[in-house]
Amino acid sequence: MNSTAGSHGHHISRQYNADLEEVKKHMLEMGGKVEKQLADALDALIRADSGKASGVISEDDVIDSMEMKIDEECNLIIARRQPAASDLRLVLAIIKAIRDLERIADESSKIAKAAIKVSEQGELPNGLIEFRTLGQQVQRALNTALDAFVRHDAEAALSVVQDDQDVDNEYAIAMRAMITYMMEEPSSISHVLNVLWALRAMERIGDHAKNICEHVVYMVVGTDIRHEKLENIADRLSG
Amino acid sequence: MNSTAGSHGHHISRQYNADLEEVKKHMLEMGGKVEKQLADALDALIRADSGKASGVISEDDVIDSMEMKIDEECNLIIARRQPAASDLRLVLAIIKAIRDLERIADESSKIAKAAIKVSEQGELPNGLIEFRTLGQQVQRALNTALDAFVRHDAEAALSVVQDDQDVDNEYAIAMRAMITYMMEEPSSISHVLNVLWALRAMERIGDHAKNICEHVVYMVVGTDIRHEKLENIADRLSG
Repeated sequence: MNSTAGSHGHHISRQYNADLEEVKKHMLEMGGKVEKQLADALDALIRADSGKASGVISEDDVIDSMEMKIDEECNLIIARRQPAASDLRLVLAIIKAIRDLERIADESSKIAKAAIKVSEQGELPNGLIEFRTLGQQVQRALNTALDAFVRHDAEAALSVVQDDQDVDNEYAIAMRAMITYMMEEPSSISHVLNVLWALRAMERIGDHAKNICEHVVYMVVGTDIRHEKLENIADRLSG
Repeated sequence: MNSTAGSHGHHISRQYNADLEEVKKHMLEMGGKVEKQLADALDALIRADSGKASGVISEDDVIDSMEMKIDEECNLIIARRQPAASDLRLVLAIIKAIRDLERIADESSKIAKAAIKVSEQGELPNGLIEFRTLGQQVQRALNTALDAFVRHDAEAALSVVQDDQDVDNEYAIAMRAMITYMMEEPSSISHVLNVLWALRAMERIGDHAKNICEHVVYMVVGTDIRHEKLENIADRLSG
């Protein structure tokens, strides 16, 4: 339909492109907002700052409505504009990516909830802030994922998929530190469990950032790379 | 396009309906398979049966390919058949539901991994099998969700969304039992943590079953009910 000649066709096509740009812009606004939620949640946890943590929790509603609005925009584009090929892949990638963004915001709220519980029990002892590196890693993964989405950069996206192993390793290190701490100080168990849940949330955020990158690769090269061997994909991208 | 008169139009329309039926059938096959994975994983955990647990983990690949295949089928239907209105909602609901199913399978694998670790340390002590009720609840939630999908039953779907609160309560009860256990037996901490991860996985499975139900409501009544007050939705369905 978009190739129809004449001014009417032109008009439709211009409007169609504007719709696509608009929904992409909204997704990136949502992405920026989610990045801020994550940064604030991690900061609240490290500083045991319950005020900041409450802010993260109450902002979660804003993210939820952003997701629903964008999802609806995508549905309308598919229904009215019947996009094909790469445009359709873009719209479907957005539909999936916003779900991952919404989950990242959810997990950030969980970190914020843990921060509030932690703040009730005073600041975290030194042995418990082993999660700082993990927090930075997942923030970087999310940032790279969003950036790769804007620039349609499959290789950058793939680097996040590859780095996810580092996130998992860092998570394992932090977990071991927590277990040791609990064994040495059984009275600290419920305190430490709050940190454990926060760690788990960070690890999941890393997974969701990885998912977004998989959507980017699908959008750019048209193949679904989930569950595929990394070497194969890297070969295909460079080949 | 599907309303085109004449035998060609008829032919397209028949093929189109067959495509829709086919993808729905595939989704339900995937659902049945995921139900089995969950049942086996829970059973493996309760019996500390590492053989059964390994079976669950190795079958996870099958679920992954099912999801990718169905996702691709849905993309093709949208691209070639340009479904509108309720057909489009069906296809989009399937795209989303299969992601939740795949996640449920993932969480079932996590339960199976916990079962293997548990089996290495012998059977679970009595205080640690508080999760049985929770396991049954989430199995029922998944079953009802899939059933509501087949029958396009928004009210049944809504009941799962409502019951999710019970799942969360049961989860809290089981969690408290674990914490008490760890405090009394610090040497059991890493043993108990395996069960904690399994509990957490069950709780997430409940969330994903709830998500599927939200997709059912969207598919049937065309509104996105996530993040909405339950009373409002129930009123609208009965109104």
